[in-house]
Amino acid sequence: MIKPRTTPGVMELLPRDQIAFQRMLDVIRRNYERFGFLPVETPVFELSEVLLTKTGGETERQVYFVQSTGALANAAESDGSQPELALRFDLTVPLARYVAQHEHDLAFPFRRYQIQRVYRGERAQRGRFREFYQCDIDVIGKDTLSVRHDAEMPAVIHAVFSELGVGEFTIQLNNRKLLRGFFEGLGIAEGERQALVLREIDKLDKRGADAVRATLVGPDFGLADNVADRIMAFVQVRSNSHADALARLDALGSGNTTLAEGVAELREVIGLLKAQGVPETDYAVNFSIARGLDYYTGTVYETTLDAHPQIGSVCSGGRYENLASSYTKSRLPGVGISIGATRLFFQLREAGILSTAESSVDVMVGLMDEARLADSLDIARQLRGAGINAEVQMEAKKLAKQFQYADKAGIRFVVLYGEDEAARNVVTVKDLRAKEQFEVARDDLARTLRVEIEQQRAMGGV
Amino acid sequence: MIKPRTTPGVMELLPRDQIAFQRMLDVIRRNYERFGFLPVETPVFELSEVLLTKTGGETERQVYFVQSTGALANAAESDGSQPELALRFDLTVPLARYVAQHEHDLAFPFRRYQIQRVYRGERAQRGRFREFYQCDIDVIGKDTLSVRHDAEMPAVIHAVFSELGVGEFTIQLNNRKLLRGFFEGLGIAEGERQALVLREIDKLDKRGADAVRATLVGPDFGLADNVADRIMAFVQVRSNSHADALARLDALGSGNTTLAEGVAELREVIGLLKAQGVPETDYAVNFSIARGLDYYTGTVYETTLDAHPQIGSVCSGGRYENLASSYTKSRLPGVGISIGATRLFFQLREAGILSTAESSVDVMVGLMDEARLADSLDIARQLRGAGINAEVQMEAKKLAKQFQYADKAGIRFVVLYGEDEAARNVVTVKDLRAKEQFEVARDDLARTLRVEIEQQRAMGGV
Repeated sequence: MIKPRTTPGVMELLPRDQIAFQRMLDVIRRNYERFGFLPVETPVFELSEVLLTKTGGETERQVYFVQSTGALANAAESDGSQPELALRFDLTVPLARYVAQHEHDLAFPFRRYQIQRVYRGERAQRGRFREFYQCDIDVIGKDTLSVRHDAEMPAVIHAVFSELGVGEFTIQLNNRKLLRGFFEGLGIAEGERQALVLREIDKLDKRGADAVRATLVGPDFGLADNVADRIMAFVQVRSNSHADALARLDALGSGNTTLAEGVAELREVIGLLKAQGVPETDYAVNFSIARGLDYYTGTVYETTLDAHPQIGSVCSGGRYENLASSYTKSRLPGVGISIGATRLFFQLREAGILSTAESSVDVMVGLMDEARLADSLDIARQLRGAGINAEVQMEAKKLAKQFQYADKAGIRFVVLYGEDEAARNVVTVKDLRAKEQFEVARDDLARTLRVEIEQQRAMGGV
Repeated sequence: MIKPRTTPGVMELLPRDQIAFQRMLDVIRRNYERFGFLPVETPVFELSEVLLTKTGGETERQVYFVQSTGALANAAESDGSQPELALRFDLTVPLARYVAQHEHDLAFPFRRYQIQRVYRGERAQRGRFREFYQCDIDVIGKDTLSVRHDAEMPAVIHAVFSELGVGEFTIQLNNRKLLRGFFEGLGIAEGERQALVLREIDKLDKRGADAVRATLVGPDFGLADNVADRIMAFVQVRSNSHADALARLDALGSGNTTLAEGVAELREVIGLLKAQGVPETDYAVNFSIARGLDYYTGTVYETTLDAHPQIGSVCSGGRYENLASSYTKSRLPGVGISIGATRLFFQLREAGILSTAESSVDVMVGLMDEARLADSLDIARQLRGAGINAEVQMEAKKLAKQFQYADKAGIRFVVLYGEDEAARNVVTVKDLRAKEQFEVARDDLARTLRVEIEQQRAMGGV
């Protein structure tokens, strides 16, 4: 006998939690489609040579390689070279490969969404997953891509998180050119040095302002006090309204060309956010946002839940200049965001924002009398025809047991049709949630429950 | 520069094909939920020790093992023992592990659906996939499970394939006890020998009746001519109506206990099929169906498309006596079916039953004049609010280019709002599918298109 268990670092849910998670994915997908993004799915494994274009990095140390039994046997006798296949570790590299491979069959700007699991060969620890969902959208241009597309991302974020019903949130915006220009203005012109300062600033929320300032004037950076002061004042800017955001940008002055470009881009993005009807309470400029990745070149985004800052960013992304330089000579600039749904789901549950769902089964048709099974099946058929998810008790077990099953499974309605009901051509409905019971004509059952269920759905969040 | 490509044996689709595939999965999922099945997802990899309980079989030769970079480095110096993780090769073993692991948290009978990809380390060849979707449902009982649940499976198959719109199909039913009883009556009583005969019979559609009969009277089996004749007559039975199915069962007589049990079970299943409203044209008994797997013990199913017999079974399954004997002492009988969606999708395309979908994007809001971008965004916001998928041209490129994009992307409606339209507070709508153009008041746009789109959806199949 083998102990049934999964490997650490993976998410496996009981059905009612899986339903809650699935609803979250459905909301994300529905909104991605609403904004005109097209579905793409890529294989879980890529050729290692294609996936691992940049060798020796953090990424490659975490990759999972895949080998069939045969390949494994051969490898044992071989030189220990890299296996042929590896699991994707994000959705960005597969997107780059996909766009380069299918370039001539795609219409640009190419708008795709992708909701799939990704894999990291990490040491298992709390909050770190070896397998987790990413939900990405990107717009990819051929040769050029207007900065206006950068304004679509926060509109999608707004639609998704509003429908998820996770309370107030703020989409925080910044621009890497603005950051670079600002640092150039302070004499921190060299790219590598800027990157190091940006990386420090990225730790602001975790380490606090004092610790970051101390590092900046300390031996590693050796910045003058007044320069450190200006940096610290700059990175603590958070706008509190649309007008304030524009004023904060104006206050930066024209400065150098890079700064001016960054300011102009961010101003355009914010203007288009307003034009899309995103409420000004839900976005802000935040000059400390740099995103750790060197990858981003313009607009950058993070999204935080106002009542739960400890969760950190629940949706991030930004603008990049060239998606697929490893695979094609075509210049493919893009902008995108990503929601790490597995981590988000756990965090929302821990924060008490999300709870176990009711069942996806709306109705259980109980069975009081073996002779009535055909009636039960017919009732279920009518319910299903009306778009109601229904299951049937196939055996006339004790009624208490049937109710116990429905209760444990989280099913809201139990429908009964016994001798008494048959005589009057009605069904008895027990609403286990409202703890009430009513009768309805057999022919009206589906219509009646349809109304109840739609009311419930209209009221529920995720 | 690295050539962008995928490994052979995987399915990767262009967006419009992905949309068609996604709709197929959505239909399957919706119908599984309609019949009260609950979602389960399991990790892509299982612990090898847990996954590979039966060693040395066909399965293990095809499994993909997974190793992180670190584990791979260690393995190179080690004894070459089996890697810790392996990719699932079906959804049945993960289900068994899941039910055994979470037994005390589940309500029985446990009804689950699972739609995920599975992996086989096969040599790549036409029609063989290394990665493919399986869409499974199973009902698992604790200790016992009424044969009545066997009748739910064909009802679900009927609902799924009706909505998929793949033309006429037949759900073929048989029962392993009926088969075993019949062979016992012919003196073929030994289990292993029965299994060999059943395996031959399973090849009936591929090899033809003459070849199978020749094998049965040949040196491997050595059956008498009259025994072979009775087998051949038996396995060519196909009922052509509900009454005929019952008559075919009656004609088998009572025979031995096993035969009688099988006949009684199949009779009950067929009776309940009728009670569920499945039309009698859509199911038949077929005594040749055995399913290759020794795993099944009672009812077995196959589903064929009437106009495309060459495709073979598009949905199969059956009843088994004990799901998880490797993991728990609890007796867990079950019944289930599986749709191999990836293979099915390719076959339906090859047979011309399924074609590339229109875009999931319903409307493109064109841009004739840079100054009207805010209007475009507002129009899109209203469309999205009405549940319409819309994208916006963010730059006022040449109109011909915008139309070219919409056409290539398969978007049905292009909406234009220029100076002329603004003056009259209308929008121009071009229906690229119907090749017609009309104007509508700006405030009525969403309502008008909603009606058009719902009509289209009501008419479309997948």
